[in-house]
Amino acid sequence: MTTREKVQVREVGLRDGLQMVQTILSTEQKLEWCRRMVDAGSVEIEVTSFVPPKIVPQFADAAEVARGALEIPNLHAAALVPNLKGAQRAIEVGLRKVHYVLSASNEHNLKNVRRTTAESVEDFRRIVVERDAGGSTSRSVTLGAGVATAFGCTISGRVEESTVLGLVETLLEAGADEITIADTVGYANPGQVRALMRKVLAITKDVPVACHFHDTRGLGLANVVAALDAGVRSFDSSLGGLGGCPFAPNATGNINTEDTVFLLESEGLDTGIDINALLAIRETIAGWLPGEPFTGAIARAGLPKTFDLREAVVA
Amino acid sequence: MTTREKVQVREVGLRDGLQMVQTILSTEQKLEWCRRMVDAGSVEIEVTSFVPPKIVPQFADAAEVARGALEIPNLHAAALVPNLKGAQRAIEVGLRKVHYVLSASNEHNLKNVRRTTAESVEDFRRIVVERDAGGSTSRSVTLGAGVATAFGCTISGRVEESTVLGLVETLLEAGADEITIADTVGYANPGQVRALMRKVLAITKDVPVACHFHDTRGLGLANVVAALDAGVRSFDSSLGGLGGCPFAPNATGNINTEDTVFLLESEGLDTGIDINALLAIRETIAGWLPGEPFTGAIARAGLPKTFDLREAVVA
Repeated sequence: MTTREKVQVREVGLRDGLQMVQTILSTEQKLEWCRRMVDAGSVEIEVTSFVPPKIVPQFADAAEVARGALEIPNLHAAALVPNLKGAQRAIEVGLRKVHYVLSASNEHNLKNVRRTTAESVEDFRRIVVERDAGGSTSRSVTLGAGVATAFGCTISGRVEESTVLGLVETLLEAGADEITIADTVGYANPGQVRALMRKVLAITKDVPVACHFHDTRGLGLANVVAALDAGVRSFDSSLGGLGGCPFAPNATGNINTEDTVFLLESEGLDTGIDINALLAIRETIAGWLPGEPFTGAIARAGLPKTFDLREAVVA
Repeated sequence: MTTREKVQVREVGLRDGLQMVQTILSTEQKLEWCRRMVDAGSVEIEVTSFVPPKIVPQFADAAEVARGALEIPNLHAAALVPNLKGAQRAIEVGLRKVHYVLSASNEHNLKNVRRTTAESVEDFRRIVVERDAGGSTSRSVTLGAGVATAFGCTISGRVEESTVLGLVETLLEAGADEITIADTVGYANPGQVRALMRKVLAITKDVPVACHFHDTRGLGLANVVAALDAGVRSFDSSLGGLGGCPFAPNATGNINTEDTVFLLESEGLDTGIDINALLAIRETIAGWLPGEPFTGAIARAGLPKTFDLREAVVA
């Protein structure tokens, strides 16, 4: 019996998913979602977003969710932060992991956080300085940096590889502990992913790198395959495919967690996650979010009969 | 300016798609669909199926559709045949291309055509003999052979690579002019596709090879990427994702033509097909087939702004 290579699936449904839905879940529902994901084998969850509550009322309970998530055993709880203030709140509440995000497309960044990409880079530098100036708990916080619209932008169109690679270098130099490359608007194609991610991995070396794909134009899982080819072993996904971006029309749809786990396990990789448990959680969440669009091929068609033979099938 | 590599997209919506729908289209509607596909740049279309009309009433007009299709300029019209009788009818009507299909899974073959896979192989040998014994027109007919359930079967589960490769060798030796490897029930995953198709291409050498994927479990386009990696340059797809297999529960959904063309063009390959024209045909067909499930990410989300820059984007 061979040990399968590990691959990480980071759940972003509670953040990227919930920012797009009509219903505001209770803090207890969000924590129940987290607990059940951990029981299903999920390790890292982006549990909330420290955006101004006036902008996204869904995240008005960010601090409570974060505090509750910190009490769940075996969970690496992370939160998204769009600026210094958000990072301060996340670190103050005791989160061990904070994800900062900026857009490679300056126009998208202006729409999303009302400042230029260059200003967001400066903001990230301030976050690093602030973290390092804090106590030992603050200093040990992992600061991830994400580059959104890395494969193109619905507002400005094409995004140059050199822009993305330059940002990655700048963020690493500023002190990013992890890098996420995001196709925020669902523009990426496999050839582009393979080419860019090879170059990103050549720059990041030992710094962990994740990809964040949307399935807007049907290529989400094909892009995962391309990123795997390039060497990426960490992916964001959203239970039931919930999610999107308020400034990317029709960009609803992070890649679906159940289908992503199915793909990765079929490829012979070890996610540690039980798909049937995911399907059960999905049913619960769908009951909490009436009228929201849930996607998912495995939820519809079921696992193949051959799925449990996958180690034998994948030569 | 570089010349892009060609890739073939074979439309099977009129065959694999229509065998699953409730509405019976008129012969004229089917021919209108063909004509518009050719105008959009499609070259090869499986225009009908020579199955017994009692089994699939949709194809009672197979001979009329074939005759009409033969009059459409620039169209390579093909038809599916499940047995010797079907092949005789297709050749008699004057089709230049006939696709025979059998299942690697014996159980699936029994359900589908009521005989064993070995009996279907013998049937194919008789078709070749009959074609070669005919006049010069008959002798010049291209006989394709497809291996269905090549990646697993909803009835019998796992299908061995060696079974598929053995069938390919037998079919080539029997005189097949083309080979199609089909994931009839949507069980394939990219690793499996890459591994199997490399071995198939090593056997087939100069004989053209196509892949036929279903998107049942969300991996249809990821499997196209894997097959491209292996060297395959011909794919079956269905406009609007119509289609399935009557003996594969929930297996509805050939890969969608619009999305497949989008993927291939995004990868820098030349399909010769205009996606916007496909979307217009799709609208017409959807009007003819009320209540049928049409899939398609591009139809929903539109092309990326960057699509026309694809040659520049794909390095």
